[in-house]
Amino acid sequence: MIKERLGKLREVMKQEGVQCLVIPTSDYHNSEYVSEYFMARKYFSGFTGSAGTLVVAEDQAALFTDGRYFIQAARELSCSDITLMKMGEPGVPAVKDYIKEILKKGQKLGFDGRVVTAGEGEAYEKLAEAAEGRVVYDRDFCGMAWEGRTQLAFTPVYQLSEAYSGESCEGKLARLREKMKEKGAEIHYLTTLDDIAWLFNLRADDVESCPVLLSYAAITETESYLFAGEKAFSEEIREYLAKNHIILKPYESFYDFVAARGMENKEEKILVCKNRINYRLLKELPEKRLIDSPNPTTRMKAVKNETEQENLRKAHLMDGIAVTRFMYWLKKNVGKIPMDEISVAEHLKSLRAQNPSFIEPSFETISAYGDNGAIIHYSAKKDACSTIQAKGMLMVDSGGHYYEGTTDITRTFILGEITEEMRQHFTLVARAVMRLKSLRFLKGCRGTNLDLAAREVFWQQGLDYKHGTGHGVGYLLNVHEGPNSFRYKELPGSDNDWEFEEGMVTTDEPGIYIEGSHGIRTENELLCRKGEQNGYGQFMHFEDLTYVPIDLDGIDPAAMEESEKKTLNAYHKSVYEKLSPYFEGEELEFLKKATREI
Amino acid sequence: MIKERLGKLREVMKQEGVQCLVIPTSDYHNSEYVSEYFMARKYFSGFTGSAGTLVVAEDQAALFTDGRYFIQAARELSCSDITLMKMGEPGVPAVKDYIKEILKKGQKLGFDGRVVTAGEGEAYEKLAEAAEGRVVYDRDFCGMAWEGRTQLAFTPVYQLSEAYSGESCEGKLARLREKMKEKGAEIHYLTTLDDIAWLFNLRADDVESCPVLLSYAAITETESYLFAGEKAFSEEIREYLAKNHIILKPYESFYDFVAARGMENKEEKILVCKNRINYRLLKELPEKRLIDSPNPTTRMKAVKNETEQENLRKAHLMDGIAVTRFMYWLKKNVGKIPMDEISVAEHLKSLRAQNPSFIEPSFETISAYGDNGAIIHYSAKKDACSTIQAKGMLMVDSGGHYYEGTTDITRTFILGEITEEMRQHFTLVARAVMRLKSLRFLKGCRGTNLDLAAREVFWQQGLDYKHGTGHGVGYLLNVHEGPNSFRYKELPGSDNDWEFEEGMVTTDEPGIYIEGSHGIRTENELLCRKGEQNGYGQFMHFEDLTYVPIDLDGIDPAAMEESEKKTLNAYHKSVYEKLSPYFEGEELEFLKKATREI
Repeated sequence: MIKERLGKLREVMKQEGVQCLVIPTSDYHNSEYVSEYFMARKYFSGFTGSAGTLVVAEDQAALFTDGRYFIQAARELSCSDITLMKMGEPGVPAVKDYIKEILKKGQKLGFDGRVVTAGEGEAYEKLAEAAEGRVVYDRDFCGMAWEGRTQLAFTPVYQLSEAYSGESCEGKLARLREKMKEKGAEIHYLTTLDDIAWLFNLRADDVESCPVLLSYAAITETESYLFAGEKAFSEEIREYLAKNHIILKPYESFYDFVAARGMENKEEKILVCKNRINYRLLKELPEKRLIDSPNPTTRMKAVKNETEQENLRKAHLMDGIAVTRFMYWLKKNVGKIPMDEISVAEHLKSLRAQNPSFIEPSFETISAYGDNGAIIHYSAKKDACSTIQAKGMLMVDSGGHYYEGTTDITRTFILGEITEEMRQHFTLVARAVMRLKSLRFLKGCRGTNLDLAAREVFWQQGLDYKHGTGHGVGYLLNVHEGPNSFRYKELPGSDNDWEFEEGMVTTDEPGIYIEGSHGIRTENELLCRKGEQNGYGQFMHFEDLTYVPIDLDGIDPAAMEESEKKTLNAYHKSVYEKLSPYFEGEELEFLKKATREI
Repeated sequence: MIKERLGKLREVMKQEGVQCLVIPTSDYHNSEYVSEYFMARKYFSGFTGSAGTLVVAEDQAALFTDGRYFIQAARELSCSDITLMKMGEPGVPAVKDYIKEILKKGQKLGFDGRVVTAGEGEAYEKLAEAAEGRVVYDRDFCGMAWEGRTQLAFTPVYQLSEAYSGESCEGKLARLREKMKEKGAEIHYLTTLDDIAWLFNLRADDVESCPVLLSYAAITETESYLFAGEKAFSEEIREYLAKNHIILKPYESFYDFVAARGMENKEEKILVCKNRINYRLLKELPEKRLIDSPNPTTRMKAVKNETEQENLRKAHLMDGIAVTRFMYWLKKNVGKIPMDEISVAEHLKSLRAQNPSFIEPSFETISAYGDNGAIIHYSAKKDACSTIQAKGMLMVDSGGHYYEGTTDITRTFILGEITEEMRQHFTLVARAVMRLKSLRFLKGCRGTNLDLAAREVFWQQGLDYKHGTGHGVGYLLNVHEGPNSFRYKELPGSDNDWEFEEGMVTTDEPGIYIEGSHGIRTENELLCRKGEQNGYGQFMHFEDLTYVPIDLDGIDPAAMEESEKKTLNAYHKSVYEKLSPYFEGEELEFLKKATREI
């Protein structure tokens, strides 16, 4: 099957005059998750993991993916001639080095410029030029060879009312235009789906776990254009757009619009974020009039307004009730009824769904029992998941999209006997969570300044976790949202280490992963708040959003510092105060015990 | 007097056709401290502080300086017509804004391009162009009007033997050429004095408190040129240069060399650090062939080799003995013999000088009694300093240049009765020093990741200190040396927040400053060392270099966490072990008591 598909693809390549084709896993908007329509790499290689790049040449093909998927990829590629390239392994070339190797003099390197970022495209350009060839980027190579491709999903678009967004579209556009003016820009092209949804107070369901609409936007000093799937817009929504002077245009017409605009307005200065736009768009923009700057909406949407903050408190309360009920059900029934990683995740989802405000999960639940917890990107599958027994630990990382906001929480539950090492590790993780959430710091700090608060206690013991300590969270948007984060490594060119401001929401999620044994992660969400202002500056701190007990069955109080125990006890006291009005009988008894002072 | 000097200067300006002249406080090498020859701003304004910029127009003049010097400048400018501009105060323009205001259309803006950095010069260029004028930067305006100017000091140059440098000049040049090759450069121009001294293993005494020689260097793939004061080179040193194939050329011939080289070698790629070179040099370099990158010697000299590390341990031991003897003498004699801030600094210097390896102080000692300690850049003067009594605290920040390296240490001594607030503050500072020095971290961390270890305990109490937590220290070079540091704020474009590597030396110096009451700073130096390497990466930690007791008379043990007390006790135990062999009688008794376990 793959052989036939690749055959058709190579025919198209021949027809279009390209000898090498790059197929990444991406949509046109630099989104973290892509919908089925964009899974060309999956269709042409048979490899179904969430990340990977396929490179197809006339007589060879290679699939590049990372450590999470080596085993899965080896299995799924076994029936094809595609070479598996295990990225990062010694001797394995990077995608660009491989292309450099196989691209012969004068040959053409093809890719759909819309699924490749501006920076990546420029790098491919250089590669091709070095081989005295060139790139061909304005053809949908895959689309031309893909039989039975699903249609682009344009799901019904709805308005997020101001009771939820806290700011009118009009207000947001005015603020955006101010920022554009400051930067000297007369037009701004926006291509990231969450920014567009946020700006226009619109939502849909075009991307799994992300309630956004496939779209592009163009904002001038006086006009707003939204390029989207017209059939997804009802009369009501069209009235809303009209009221806000937003002109609706077909999704596909964006590139022609940009090109035409460039011809008509030869002086117009254009604001884009080169880091985020795709290469196809970049090539339509006149270099001399480009202002390359982070999208103003990046910071605007990260700073949640008071309405959003108040809503988030509600969303987290509802979420906390669901997860705490889950905790009770799990610890009461484990070993007594059949349970596996998938069934418990579904039970948790059903508890969340009891709330009318719940829309959908904010991401695919990570439900990892025993040593599966040590696999950082473990994903239980219906036909490949572990049964759960009254022994060891279960890690559940889950969240929900509510009209009142998006949640993301991890709890590791003690289901029975655990080793002393597990207890010490569980306590270490809890200590780190407590230390970070009780920080006080001066305005001006970025996540790279603050990460140490959590990681320090790991490093003291020669331990660590190979991921950031936290990420920003969107409001009924992406569960992973910049520009705020907690990390110590600096990622070049990325906009995810900005100064903390009141209203930013960030996760606090250290963990420990011991291969073959266990994995523990505990995650709360923190809302940044202003505190005292004095001669030294503006002090800031974090307000808890997450209120769910941390399993005391895993805690060794003797391994905690006094201040850390104090923080944990105060936290649990708040958990009890907030949740108890919603609990009764056995569940209430459970809650009381789970939040007892240690 | 100033009136006459300014008159002469304005004559030169008229003669050279410039209507506005900028006179910063700088040498040609972006040095932190400048020698008398370069103190044009002082000569033409009468203001003698260490930092300030004078702007002279046809009919007005303004002196710009910072908060440290407002009072001093007001006094020193009182007899002239020069307007004092208190930088940072509301309503006070920045230098560039002032120039923008007064520069009329078509006028010429003058400055000596050698005392202005490449970036500053480009900014002045833009200013002048905006006023449809231009800059004139290749004249020594001040020199032409300065009667009785001291000669450029070219003090005798000596070689730093490999017993001290740990690496031959040949070896350093080979490594530098490797780096140049990596960056594709065929020639490298180096203008920073400490880098040049380090590279060639030369020292002199051309700058106060910094044992370097006024010089420039040009390194090609095969040749090394040193532009310096030829009369400062004895036969012996010339032989050393010849042996290392270093061609000595006159100091003043550098710019012509660069210009001529540019004409002869029209393809040659040139490596410079734009952040560090002066504007005059920039204008001699063809933009298209410039490779702008940090000087490779920046990192090379920051990573002290094993010989330097071993020497530094010796230097700090000698230094620690001197400072501890000082501590004994001070606490024993205060209130019994006359003492003032200057006389105690001189006594400390004499104790350091007892060691034959001692060369000179590494900077002007900060000796601050009582509330003088709250003034961050306080500088006691012979005719304006406080007497010291057996009450309150004395802060002494001092250091030495030894053949075995450079030291920088601060101790705050308790001289008698102190308030409870002083005790709590003293303890807070000690806690922060202990926390930072006992960090364990993964390679990859920069100072901005680690600063929190010290600052956290201040921020918890709504306190802070308005300076970095630490700076790198050179080896018999600049006491303030990048690219390593501890700070939380990011300084744009500067190279002082690099990854920590084994061999880097950084100070650990939190403090607290309460206006009108007291100032406390405690400073140790830390040598970065590699620790365990495991699956998580390469762990790093700090080895103490400084061994001097921290005055326990200021410590409240109850205000310290267990781990912090443990660290302090372990530190004092090491202080006793290292210093006791050199002490006897009363001094030894004092040492024992000063390092007792709390």
